[in-house]
Amino acid sequence: MTNPERVESAIVDRRAIVNDAIAEQLPVKKPERLYEASRYLLDAGGKRLRPAVLLLVAESISGTDAPATGYRDFPTPNGERVDVLSAAVSIEVIQSFTLIHDDIMDDDDLRRGVPAVHREYDLETAILAGDTLYSKAFEYMLETGAPADRSVDALNELATTCTEICEGQALDVDFESRSDVTTEEYLQMIEYKTAVLYGAAASIPAILLGCDSETIEALHGYGLDVGRAFQIQDDLLDLTTPSEELGKQRGSDLVEGKRTAVTLHARNNGIDVEELVPADPSDAEIEVALERLRDAGSIDFAREMAMDLIERGKDRLEVLPENESRELLAGIADYLVERTY
Amino acid sequence: MTNPERVESAIVDRRAIVNDAIAEQLPVKKPERLYEASRYLLDAGGKRLRPAVLLLVAESISGTDAPATGYRDFPTPNGERVDVLSAAVSIEVIQSFTLIHDDIMDDDDLRRGVPAVHREYDLETAILAGDTLYSKAFEYMLETGAPADRSVDALNELATTCTEICEGQALDVDFESRSDVTTEEYLQMIEYKTAVLYGAAASIPAILLGCDSETIEALHGYGLDVGRAFQIQDDLLDLTTPSEELGKQRGSDLVEGKRTAVTLHARNNGIDVEELVPADPSDAEIEVALERLRDAGSIDFAREMAMDLIERGKDRLEVLPENESRELLAGIADYLVERTY
Repeated sequence: MTNPERVESAIVDRRAIVNDAIAEQLPVKKPERLYEASRYLLDAGGKRLRPAVLLLVAESISGTDAPATGYRDFPTPNGERVDVLSAAVSIEVIQSFTLIHDDIMDDDDLRRGVPAVHREYDLETAILAGDTLYSKAFEYMLETGAPADRSVDALNELATTCTEICEGQALDVDFESRSDVTTEEYLQMIEYKTAVLYGAAASIPAILLGCDSETIEALHGYGLDVGRAFQIQDDLLDLTTPSEELGKQRGSDLVEGKRTAVTLHARNNGIDVEELVPADPSDAEIEVALERLRDAGSIDFAREMAMDLIERGKDRLEVLPENESRELLAGIADYLVERTY
Repeated sequence: MTNPERVESAIVDRRAIVNDAIAEQLPVKKPERLYEASRYLLDAGGKRLRPAVLLLVAESISGTDAPATGYRDFPTPNGERVDVLSAAVSIEVIQSFTLIHDDIMDDDDLRRGVPAVHREYDLETAILAGDTLYSKAFEYMLETGAPADRSVDALNELATTCTEICEGQALDVDFESRSDVTTEEYLQMIEYKTAVLYGAAASIPAILLGCDSETIEALHGYGLDVGRAFQIQDDLLDLTTPSEELGKQRGSDLVEGKRTAVTLHARNNGIDVEELVPADPSDAEIEVALERLRDAGSIDFAREMAMDLIERGKDRLEVLPENESRELLAGIADYLVERTY
C-alpha cells in the first residue's frame, strides 16, 4: 500500500492549488450576495478529493509532475495544451452545488462545521447559489482549451453525471419510505448519488487529454468503484464519528431513515432499524445503536463491501502508465475507506 | 405588420411539434416521481415562444420551410444536417427549470392555472426536478449533431445564459429591498432574468448552422430586445389581466414589491408604490391602483418602452435573408407586446 502520509500530502498540495483556482475563477462580483453564497460552502472547507483524482489522472497519463509545468497549461501526450485545473474546479463546483441543494432537501442545519447555506443566507439565495454553481461548472468545463470534439465529450460526461446525481438523490428520498430496498438497488442509488461524480473526475481528464475509449472507460470504472466505497465509508462515519469532527449531527442517517449498507444488512438480520434511535438521539443513544449494529455484523458487512470495491477500483488503474501518480491514485482509493472524517 | 393570425398559427404549428419532441426526449422513466415532476409544468401548457423563435431563425437562415424536411434533420447552408428541434427543446426545458425554482423562491402557489410544482409535489421534488431539467437541457443541446466547434459555442451560450438568469433573479430579489433602483438597473435586471434566454433562442440556431459572428450577434440582440419587451408586457399583464386568465394571482408584483417599468415610473412621479395595494388585494382594489398608475402615465411609459424595444429588435432581423420566416420573427416581436395573456 502507498505510504498514507505521501497520499495525504499529495491531496493537501493539490487542494491548495484548487482553492486558489476557485478564488480566481469564481470571484465575488455583482450581485455580491449571490456570489458570496455561492462561495460560502467552498470556502468553509472540503478536502477537494475529486479534483485531486482528476489532476492525478492527468499527471499519470502525461507522465508529468504537474506543479512544474502548471495545470493550466498541461501537456497532452500529443503535445497539445489543456487547462486541466479548470476541469478540476468544474467538478468541485458541481459537488458544492449538490451539497447546497441537498442540505435544503434534507433540511440539514450544519455542513462542514458551519451553517448550511439556506441557514446562513435564506432558502431563495441557497437555491439560486446552487443554480449559479451549476452553470458555472459548465462554463469552466468549456474553458479547458481542449480540442472541440473532446470538449463536447467532456461536457456530455458532465451533463449525464448531473442528471444521474439528481436521479440518485430522488432514489435516496424514495427509499426512505420503502422497507424492501435490496442491496442491488442501494448500490445503484449510491452509484448515481455519489459515485458518478468520481467517475467524471477520473474519466474527464482522460477525455480531455485524448485517451482511447478503453482507458476512459476503465478510469470511469475506477471512479464508480471508489466513489461507492467513499459513500459507504461516509455512512459508517455518520455512525461512528463525534458530531464536532463530522461537522454535522452524528447519526443523522438513522434519524432520517436513510438506507445505507449498514441498515440494509441490519434489517435483513432482524433488527428493527426504525426503532434503533429516538427522534433526537444523544451520543450515548447512538453508541447503543452502534453496538447493536456491530453485534449483528452490519458494520463489518459494510466495511467489507467498501474494501471489495476499493480493490476492484485499484485494479482498473492498470490502464494507466506505471508511475508515481498512478500509485497515488491507488493510495487515494485506500485513503477513502481509511479516513476517519 | 405581419398578419397576426399568420403569426399565431406559426406559433401554434411549432408548439405542437415541440410538445411532441418534449414527450419524446423527456419520457417519464425511473425514478418516476422525479420525471413526472419534471414534466408537470411542461405538460401544463406554455406557448413555446422561445422554441418558435429558435426554429424560425433556423428556417430563415436555411431558406427552408421546416416541416417538409423535418427539424431533426435540418439542412445548414453548407449542406450539413443539424437537429435544431433538440436545441429548441433544450431552451424550453431551461425555461421550465427556471419557473419551477422561481415559484419556490417567490412562494407562488399557481402557475399556468395549476399548482406550482412545489405545491403539487413537495419542496424536495421541485428543487430536484428543476436540477434534472437543468442538466437535461445541456444533454439536449449536445445532441444536435452539429460540428463539435459549433456545439461548444452553443453550449457556451447556454451556460452563460443560465448564469445570467441566476444573476437576474438575484438582482430582482435584491431590488425588492431597495427604493433607489434606476431604470437602467431595471433594464439590466430584466435583460438577465428574462431576455437572455430569448437571446440564446435566437442566436443558437445561427451558431449551430454555421453563421458568421455578425449574424449571430444581431440575432442575439433581437432576442435581448424582444425579451425585455416581453418582460415589460408581462409586468403590464400582471396588473391588467384577471387572475383566471393569468393562471396566477393578479397584481402579485405589486404585493411582492417587485420593481417593474410601471412602478419605477410611478415612484419617480411621486406615487407611494408600497401603499398602492393592501396585503391580499381584491380585484377591485387592484383596479383602483391601476387607475392611479394610468393617471400618472406609468402604464403608457411602460408600453412605450416595450414598443421601442420591439422596433429595435425587428430592425436587427435585417441580417437574415428576406423570407417568410423572417417576417414571422418580426410578427412574433409584435405579438409579444400585443398579447393579452
